[in-house]
Amino acid sequence: KINSDRLWDSLMEMAKIGPGVAGGNNRQTLTDEDAEGRALFQKWCEDAGMAMGVDKMGTMFMTRPGEDPDALPVYMGSHLDTQPTGGKYDGVLGVLGALEAVRTMNDLGLKTKHPIVVTNWANEEGARFAPAMLASGVFAGMHSLDYAYGRADLEGKTYGEELKRIGWQGEEEVGARKMHAYYELHIEQGPILEAEGKDIGVVTHCQGLWWLEFTLTGTAAHTGSTPMPMRVNAGLAMSRIFEMVQAVAMENQPNAVGGVGQVTFTPNSRNVLPGKVVFTVDIRTPDQTKLDAMRAKIEAEAAKICEALGVGCSVEAVGHFDPVTFTPELVSNVRNAAERLGYSHMDIISGAGHDACWAAKMAPTTMIMCPCVDGLSHNEAEEISKDWAAAGTDVLLHAVLETAEI
Amino acid sequence: KINSDRLWDSLMEMAKIGPGVAGGNNRQTLTDEDAEGRALFQKWCEDAGMAMGVDKMGTMFMTRPGEDPDALPVYMGSHLDTQPTGGKYDGVLGVLGALEAVRTMNDLGLKTKHPIVVTNWANEEGARFAPAMLASGVFAGMHSLDYAYGRADLEGKTYGEELKRIGWQGEEEVGARKMHAYYELHIEQGPILEAEGKDIGVVTHCQGLWWLEFTLTGTAAHTGSTPMPMRVNAGLAMSRIFEMVQAVAMENQPNAVGGVGQVTFTPNSRNVLPGKVVFTVDIRTPDQTKLDAMRAKIEAEAAKICEALGVGCSVEAVGHFDPVTFTPELVSNVRNAAERLGYSHMDIISGAGHDACWAAKMAPTTMIMCPCVDGLSHNEAEEISKDWAAAGTDVLLHAVLETAEI
Ligand SMILES: NC(=O)NCCC(=O)O
Ligand SMILES: NC(=O)NCCC(=O)O
Repeated sequence: KINSDRLWDSLMEMAKIGPGVAGGNNRQTLTDEDAEGRALFQKWCEDAGMAMGVDKMGTMFMTRPGEDPDALPVYMGSHLDTQPTGGKYDGVLGVLGALEAVRTMNDLGLKTKHPIVVTNWANEEGARFAPAMLASGVFAGMHSLDYAYGRADLEGKTYGEELKRIGWQGEEEVGARKMHAYYELHIEQGPILEAEGKDIGVVTHCQGLWWLEFTLTGTAAHTGSTPMPMRVNAGLAMSRIFEMVQAVAMENQPNAVGGVGQVTFTPNSRNVLPGKVVFTVDIRTPDQTKLDAMRAKIEAEAAKICEALGVGCSVEAVGHFDPVTFTPELVSNVRNAAERLGYSHMDIISGAGHDACWAAKMAPTTMIMCPCVDGLSHNEAEEISKDWAAAGTDVLLHAVLETAEI
Repeated sequence: KINSDRLWDSLMEMAKIGPGVAGGNNRQTLTDEDAEGRALFQKWCEDAGMAMGVDKMGTMFMTRPGEDPDALPVYMGSHLDTQPTGGKYDGVLGVLGALEAVRTMNDLGLKTKHPIVVTNWANEEGARFAPAMLASGVFAGMHSLDYAYGRADLEGKTYGEELKRIGWQGEEEVGARKMHAYYELHIEQGPILEAEGKDIGVVTHCQGLWWLEFTLTGTAAHTGSTPMPMRVNAGLAMSRIFEMVQAVAMENQPNAVGGVGQVTFTPNSRNVLPGKVVFTVDIRTPDQTKLDAMRAKIEAEAAKICEALGVGCSVEAVGHFDPVTFTPELVSNVRNAAERLGYSHMDIISGAGHDACWAAKMAPTTMIMCPCVDGLSHNEAEEISKDWAAAGTDVLLHAVLETAEI
């Protein structure tokens, strides 16, 4: 079993970097705080005898050598970047849990045939630069490096510029590494495990996603002197699209969600009807057919809503992954490890996207989930217990050892 | 008659300061561009023989002496600040038209019994600091100086700090001046004069306004892993309130408007349902009873909408003025001047708020309007013809001379 105090101390130490405003974290990707978090993680890994590689996307790969020089490494990890008002565990548990697994192997003098690599994928959240899971997506060949470097934040700064600025652009070609397998530990970010009283979620699938960025064009006009019939009101069109997205998600229950997290009004002045409104619709479901049907319906209905108001409407897909089925052999390893260690467990579908979704395109892959309080995540109040963190990390260690061969 | 080429040249010269992105202007209040515009206006006025006074709100008063040292001055003016994506004439025509009227008096060697004061009121737009017409509101005793100094922009900078920073905090007590009368020339910012083919709007009233700032509190949560029934969705509540405001405005037709120009989502990340949504509802009508009934209905319905979704709702009134009736004697002066000069005219109600609405609390006041193309304002594409500008300024000159007594 892993050392749960050491794991918890490391989680709390990392959470000091980029503190939020309400007990959580704001350590967004490619900020100074991200650089500080990376440096601390690098130090910890090197103290544990691992050697660093960094690729051109800024993803960190920390290697513990194996006994067979020809064997491909077993990877485990997640991400250290956070939402602007994020929690202390989303991603971080998967990275520091993997580090704790290596520290435990060191304590026990365990040697594995396959090398072990602990990974901190860059820009998993997609909060600052859409899409999410950007570096793992380039790794899996889903996006070109140029596309990734050109992604811009709301201030217009690009991924490429910011990666150089913080000094974490590596030399390795992205995706050049071959993986024997990939395991990712993550908090559930949903309410199911806690409600069912289970320690471990054995993740069998991940739901698919579309991020649809709408740009609505109205006529910027005075809110006081522009009569109602003359208005070309992009804000009103937006509100009708929000309501329609909600309806589409509801008519696809169970196992479908839809909502909007980001909105920008231009010029955003109290007495000006917006000339431009940009927002991103996020829809997800584990069912491929449903996912595509939801997207098609939302685009068609939005076009009708806008047409009725004379508002211009264009849509760009700024994020997407299809539903994923994880590798049955690895899923069994996780289930067996939980069983052997005496942890209660259940099969679960991931509601959030993870780097594992892209890794699954490259190698046998699966995930392990642990509960979080009230299912709350992407919120500074995100919370887990030390026992949950320890159970997840124990299962990670055992499943990885199974694949890496002691 | 005034010199229409000189007026137009001055309008075009001022428009070079704080250029917009699409042919208009971004010369928001208390920015460096505002300071530059003020300095140019000061120079022009001093070249025309006027002496400057500046009050503690930063309003500029440029005086042309009268023949009777005991007579109160006749004021005319408007504002030089603009919306973030504003036009070249909104406010500017009223200030530079007043300057042109004085230049014409100088050309003709006209002396008046009453001194003449050309005024550039500070922060008329309310785009950067709510409410609109802030300096004239303090002048009229509607707000305290402390309240005004404490108003903050979206970045948290206050009016007081920014006024000092740009070097335009004057010494004069705000509202210490007494006015014999106040005239304001302004573009209509609506479609009526152009549609009716009239050169001059004789403004008899101004509609009243409420700016209701809503703060909705939801639960920041993951857009992917938070099931639909668990969501406390402040963005959805907002969209229902937009639709309801639209309905309330429509059921109060004719002569009522309602809309939203400013929205802020927090944390504003694509995969986070917003924990907080702030937006400002703008409602207006010339009918006092209707205005108050609209406000009451909107607040009551919004509370119901939020309650049904479990979303917290608080409302603050960040801008307000009651409907205004302008001074009949001055209104007649405007109508008679238009008649005498051979300009077509009609009586009209102002859809926008103006500094004249607050000046009316202090002295006999009225306004003169000229058409604008397609009724478009608060838009960089705002346009007027040189002839319309000249006609409005001619009427301003004649009406002011009537009151200032040659
Ligand atoms: N785990 C997580 O929050 N990933 C971000 C991508 C997503 O929105 O699912
Ligand atoms: N004239 C003008 O646009 N004033 C700003 C205040 C308002 O919104 O009416």
